Amino acid sequence: MTNDFDIPDRIIVAIGGNATHPEDIEGTSREQKDIAEHTAQALLPLALRDNELIITHGNGPVVGKILMRQALTSDTIAPMPLDICVAHSQGGIAYLLVQALENALREAGNPRHAACLLTQVEVDPDDPAFQNPTKPIGEFYSEEEAQRLARDMGWQMKEDSGRGWRHVVPSPTPLHVCDISLVEDLAKRGSVIFAGGGGGIPVVRGPNGVRNGVEAVIDKDLTSAHMANVLGIETLMILTAVPNVAINFGTPEQRLLHRVTVSELRRYQDEGHFAAGSMGSKIEATLRFLDRGGKRVIIAHLDQAAEALAGTAGTHVVPDA
Amino acid sequence: MTNDFDIPDRIIVAIGGNATHPEDIEGTSREQKDIAEHTAQALLPLALRDNELIITHGNGPVVGKILMRQALTSDTIAPMPLDICVAHSQGGIAYLLVQALENALREAGNPRHAACLLTQVEVDPDDPAFQNPTKPIGEFYSEEEAQRLARDMGWQMKEDSGRGWRHVVPSPTPLHVCDISLVEDLAKRGSVIFAGGGGGIPVVRGPNGVRNGVEAVIDKDLTSAHMANVLGIETLMILTAVPNVAINFGTPEQRLLHRVTVSELRRYQDEGHFAAGSMGSKIEATLRFLDRGGKRVIIAHLDQAAEALAGTAGTHVVPDA
Repeated sequence: MTNDFDIPDRIIVAIGGNATHPEDIEGTSREQKDIAEHTAQALLPLALRDNELIITHGNGPVVGKILMRQALTSDTIAPMPLDICVAHSQGGIAYLLVQALENALREAGNPRHAACLLTQVEVDPDDPAFQNPTKPIGEFYSEEEAQRLARDMGWQMKEDSGRGWRHVVPSPTPLHVCDISLVEDLAKRGSVIFAGGGGGIPVVRGPNGVRNGVEAVIDKDLTSAHMANVLGIETLMILTAVPNVAINFGTPEQRLLHRVTVSELRRYQDEGHFAAGSMGSKIEATLRFLDRGGKRVIIAHLDQAAEALAGTAGTHVVPDA
Repeated sequence: MTNDFDIPDRIIVAIGGNATHPEDIEGTSREQKDIAEHTAQALLPLALRDNELIITHGNGPVVGKILMRQALTSDTIAPMPLDICVAHSQGGIAYLLVQALENALREAGNPRHAACLLTQVEVDPDDPAFQNPTKPIGEFYSEEEAQRLARDMGWQMKEDSGRGWRHVVPSPTPLHVCDISLVEDLAKRGSVIFAGGGGGIPVVRGPNGVRNGVEAVIDKDLTSAHMANVLGIETLMILTAVPNVAINFGTPEQRLLHRVTVSELRRYQDEGHFAAGSMGSKIEATLRFLDRGGKRVIIAHLDQAAEALAGTAGTHVVPDA
């Protein structure tokens, strides 16, 4: 594809929860470190630039394992609510990413620091997502196990296309990233900042600005888009496990998208090209960000982050001309 | 006691891990929130002042439960190493404290922010603590359970004064708090900063400044003392569950200390007044801090934080005249 833009000096990059953690529950800590190191190598070319760089990450496998350990031990140890579990996952995932990215920078002879600010994100207590939990977390269970978990843990369980039962939770829209001014300050000072991990710790705001956690998981791509809009950052990069957004995905007519406008992408969305869940939520975050002043969303494979930033890989979505 | 000092405008406060979490394993999340709210009320008078305020916290009960859940599920879900567990506990504990303290500030009509920076702390790989693990984590176990945990989890188990067996880990001395300049920046900008939680995520530094996690837990009072020394903060406050340091503790000759010099305290230490573990490590942190330029250590009950800061409660340790 043609390279039609200057490499931005302010950017938010969203990476998946599987960028630090194997999906399977037997995944060892050695594998976690290896994955974090691989992710750091992919992000290194971005961090070696003289830029403002904020990174968000998902928490899929990690928070699923935290919940599963709790379900297996709930008769012995009191389980934690989901907001606290998300907070745990922010700490654990960001630690591995901060360490791996700083190590990659040091090996490259670069003194840049990386740091993580724990992040709460406010959602609307009346968000319709609370009436209709859709976000699956963790493993597939048999119907019998699902009934046990619903009874003992209060989990809402949903049958998933014949593959088994999964724990589903509300995924409300992010409204406000708490302490975003501190995130901006630290990013402007030159550190690579990890924030909004797992989409942020979900909280609601009550009278006097008092906050309380809620049982939910916020989509990290929507949180990233929101942060970028609020900070006036014009480029959002969403790194994932596929090289491009595709239409007619998985069919003989599949076509990879390279450069696409908002109108074109919305038309494809209306035509049903993007399944709910993974790519669907990335497209939703993309359109929200560009509708609110963003200038470019790059969706690319993690391993092609450098090429995607240079404009030679990934799907680039831009406002209508 | 007489009030012989000005209230400091730069201070590091260390609080115990039980300031957010009940000790018993049945402790529910509701109890956790209640405890965090109680702690926030105790800290509120400090946060309402126009000061630089950095808070560290322990992670005892939380990291113990993380490890215990892992031990009970290790045949199903791969366990995490201790550095990652500490990172999880930093996220979970600091989230509750940040939220509770900000809520207390809002209820008091004060807009001050609180935030948490995830913190790695470097230790020496040759620290003798690695050869002699002494820090107990989690519950007491029977000898049979202890043998099972040593075999399945690789835990070092130690018999504890006839009360059962406990998991013990190395507790090396903190040498460097990573990203301490970011902690200082944020504190100078006015936010109450939580850092060094659980004593910090333990790491060692290799060639090129590359860091890797180690199996250890760092004493949070030593980490607090180190941070205060490095930042030139002259007052360290250690909040705990007793109102004063005592000599002849638990005997008819027990005497509470109010104002004491380094020489006096060291003499009491040499005379064996302070048991290893809780008070012993606080005294060690106190002496290290004052030997390296600190001007005052206040050891007081959490509920008397305001009075202790004003000089009318707690034990105040000062350099020799």
